[in-house]
Amino acid sequence: MTINYPVGTHHGKTLKNNTLRTGKTTKKVLFGKRGMGLEDEINLANDYYLANRLAVVHKKPTPITIVKVDYPARSAAKITEAYFKQASTTDYNGVYQGKYIDFDAKETKNKTSFPLKNFHEHQISHLASILSQGGIGFVIIKFTSLNENYVYPASELIQQWQHLNGKQSISYQEIVDKSFVVPESLNPSLDYLTAVDKMLEALH
Amino acid sequence: MTINYPVGTHHGKTLKNNTLRTGKTTKKVLFGKRGMGLEDEINLANDYYLANRLAVVHKKPTPITIVKVDYPARSAAKITEAYFKQASTTDYNGVYQGKYIDFDAKETKNKTSFPLKNFHEHQISHLASILSQGGIGFVIIKFTSLNENYVYPASELIQQWQHLNGKQSISYQEIVDKSFVVPESLNPSLDYLTAVDKMLEALH
Repeated sequence: MTINYPVGTHHGKTLKNNTLRTGKTTKKVLFGKRGMGLEDEINLANDYYLANRLAVVHKKPTPITIVKVDYPARSAAKITEAYFKQASTTDYNGVYQGKYIDFDAKETKNKTSFPLKNFHEHQISHLASILSQGGIGFVIIKFTSLNENYVYPASELIQQWQHLNGKQSISYQEIVDKSFVVPESLNPSLDYLTAVDKMLEALH
Repeated sequence: MTINYPVGTHHGKTLKNNTLRTGKTTKKVLFGKRGMGLEDEINLANDYYLANRLAVVHKKPTPITIVKVDYPARSAAKITEAYFKQASTTDYNGVYQGKYIDFDAKETKNKTSFPLKNFHEHQISHLASILSQGGIGFVIIKFTSLNENYVYPASELIQQWQHLNGKQSISYQEIVDKSFVVPESLNPSLDYLTAVDKMLEALH
């Protein structure tokens, strides 16, 4: 079976997925890291890791329910009705030194806590499944007002989720205590694997 | 940042991604495995593996370039213009006993060979990156006319791709010789991890 995905031919006015999701930040003028959303930073880090053969991590495409597709003659198939669908897993996964890694990325303007409403039940249970298979699960949490980034282990998140019944917030201090800080870095600007290394060391 | 994906509300006339891609087969009356496409069989196997805590493997959403989105009042955001995009990776990945696995699934009606045009250059280079990171890469190949399924190692595919310059076909015999057959099974009907186990044994 050959599957030919026609490539979108409207690049001039293309609205990329990441523009959709971090629209507010990407409209700003880019100047170094300023104005770059967490997702953009992670994508750049993943590009860097791939090019330097350090890891292969990709963001999954946004899940969509397609309702109507037009097949115009001599043109690419055009989706004319579709809806965003709730993701059943996390946004990122890949392989790092033979190990399976799986994570989501969340940012908050809050300075004192991280609201659990940022997660859905199925993301938590997905991360629990990953851990039970021996995979490495975590969340990259960015406190945008503080410009601090943390790799927060999935095991801690699951514990807090159960403890707080999926509601309320995890305190900033709790996250700082249980996380591995992503150090300041130039290239990539968000070198999250350095923090993952420290997490793996701590697990052994 | 809270991201709320509105759930599609048109389930009555929903055209699922897998219906789109294996439309010809799924219209047939289902009777046991008959009429079930390879993708459906893999999804059922993945459901089985997840429920029985044997592996966590998901199909990635179909990559789409979104051009226009309407935000009707009191309704879910509606995508009104979008195009299929060529995938930059394979369709499936996940974790199996702590190991990263990554694969694509292809079927052919051909009985004597498997055409390389089923692959794109970037899928081959993605699989090569996976192998270099210590991940497990392969392709599930179904010869539909013979009703035979094989787990064909990515290392072999990459070799043949280079040898044949991405053109022509790999002979049926070559695939049989270098693959690990997926045994007949009831539940799941396509128990591909059994073949992956044999591949991993052979690698050691």
